[in-house]
Amino acid sequence: MDVTQINNMCANTLVSHLGIEFTEVGDGYLKATMPVDDRTRQPQGLLHGGASAALAETLGSVGSALRLDLSRQVPVGLEINANHIRAITGGTVTGTATALHLGRRTHVWDIKIEDETGRLICTSRLTIMVVDR
Amino acid sequence: MDVTQINNMCANTLVSHLGIEFTEVGDGYLKATMPVDDRTRQPQGLLHGGASAALAETLGSVGSALRLDLSRQVPVGLEINANHIRAITGGTVTGTATALHLGRRTHVWDIKIEDETGRLICTSRLTIMVVDR
Amino acid sequence: MDVTQINNMCANTLVSHLGIEFTEVGDGYLKATMPVDDRTRQPQGLLHGGASAALAETLGSVGSALRLDLSRQVPVGLEINANHIRAITGGTVTGTATALHLGRRTHVWDIKIEDETGRLICTSRLTIMVVDR
Amino acid sequence: MDVTQINNMCANTLVSHLGIEFTEVGDGYLKATMPVDDRTRQPQGLLHGGASAALAETLGSVGSALRLDLSRQVPVGLEINANHIRAITGGTVTGTATALHLGRRTHVWDIKIEDETGRLICTSRLTIMVVDR
Repeated sequence: MDVTQINNMCANTLVSHLGIEFTEVGDGYLKATMPVDDRTRQPQGLLHGGASAALAETLGSVGSALRLDLSRQVPVGLEINANHIRAITGGTVTGTATALHLGRRTHVWDIKIEDETGRLICTSRLTIMVVDR
Repeated sequence: MDVTQINNMCANTLVSHLGIEFTEVGDGYLKATMPVDDRTRQPQGLLHGGASAALAETLGSVGSALRLDLSRQVPVGLEINANHIRAITGGTVTGTATALHLGRRTHVWDIKIEDETGRLICTSRLTIMVVDR
Repeated sequence: MDVTQINNMCANTLVSHLGIEFTEVGDGYLKATMPVDDRTRQPQGLLHGGASAALAETLGSVGSALRLDLSRQVPVGLEINANHIRAITGGTVTGTATALHLGRRTHVWDIKIEDETGRLICTSRLTIMVVDR
Repeated sequence: MDVTQINNMCANTLVSHLGIEFTEVGDGYLKATMPVDDRTRQPQGLLHGGASAALAETLGSVGSALRLDLSRQVPVGLEINANHIRAITGGTVTGTATALHLGRRTHVWDIKIEDETGRLICTSRLTIMVVDR
């Protein structure tokens, strides 16, 4: 799947609802952007940490799905964790997922979210279990 | 603040955008609901793990804000982690935050998310740093 | 297995090397103690956070092993996380593991570590994958 | 402090008790080794995940201590998390800590543990709070 197909697949989901758009997908490597606006901010006007977690989990989950033959196996998100490093009030953030481990039974993704000048906003790790259908 | 005031404060944010509504707030204890629908699902039709993380982070952050004199101190979300225990495709989930630690410099929250029959969907922990203004 | 058998099984391992001793085991519930001394402290004389993590992972892993028919399945520790809540310089800590989820493919444990007066030292969560031999 | 001084400082602690030895320290970058033997294994003969967590927390904590003027500030470990990627039964592992964030109030470390051939055994993240004395 290319980025257009992935973005189409995400229509009418949390992913599109938050304005997340995939911009690059490769083997064990994906990028997506997310706006910092009323859809993703908390009451004090900062990017909500939950939006960062949603972007991170989206990137890793899609990355795992792209690795699998989905007629035989599905990726199941088991655990996500995230450190919120820096506050941001507007603009766009970019998340980059890099595979730390792509095993037979589990995938582990590192996801970093940066602002438009490359400063680290959030660092996250996602654990996926590969389950036979 | 009562639940109506908290829900009003969350208008035009990620919180309202996901349909999250606070239903109960007490000292070191809060509840909120979230719909499982196109706003919170992933492409396969299941509740997106990122929506669970967003609900968890919302509950703990508001819980910490309610404990502080916000003219002097602010809660800063440092780290969130979450285990996704069970898939769910529709209805409403309820998150309950319980304080594990309410110290001078840090707060730690346990957040559990359950379906309408009380089955565990997600268990999460949020670390908050209390920062002087 | 009773606690004596478990403690014997842990001879000549990290578990015995840190002075960890199981004191109670039940279904989805286990307790073990650990001394706070030169074996488990960091250079400033406080309990090392890594010792807490080791106690937590020991409790959850043994708890999962007790649930499985080990001739057919093995528990594999995937992820551990821990919040260090309170410093402690001596005495004994007690860890209590409680099952949050005991599924077909994964187990999730909550582990709390307390001092001799019941104050919370550490709270941890362990994710176990159940793998067929 | 050089590695010899750090290793001396860690005498009679968990660090020395597990056989952990620092081999390289720089600004925001540290390395230490740990044996996989009866001191660090679990009952099935594999490296105990808690030993990995202890190595990770040791590396990040010392890294933060080296950054601070300890007469004025102390590093406090708040949260650690770790994914166990690959089992190992013997030899030596090497942990490498890299600073993800060195702020005024918090430090965040990435720690990777590898076997002698460079395969990833464990990936961890440690959150440190910087506290004024």
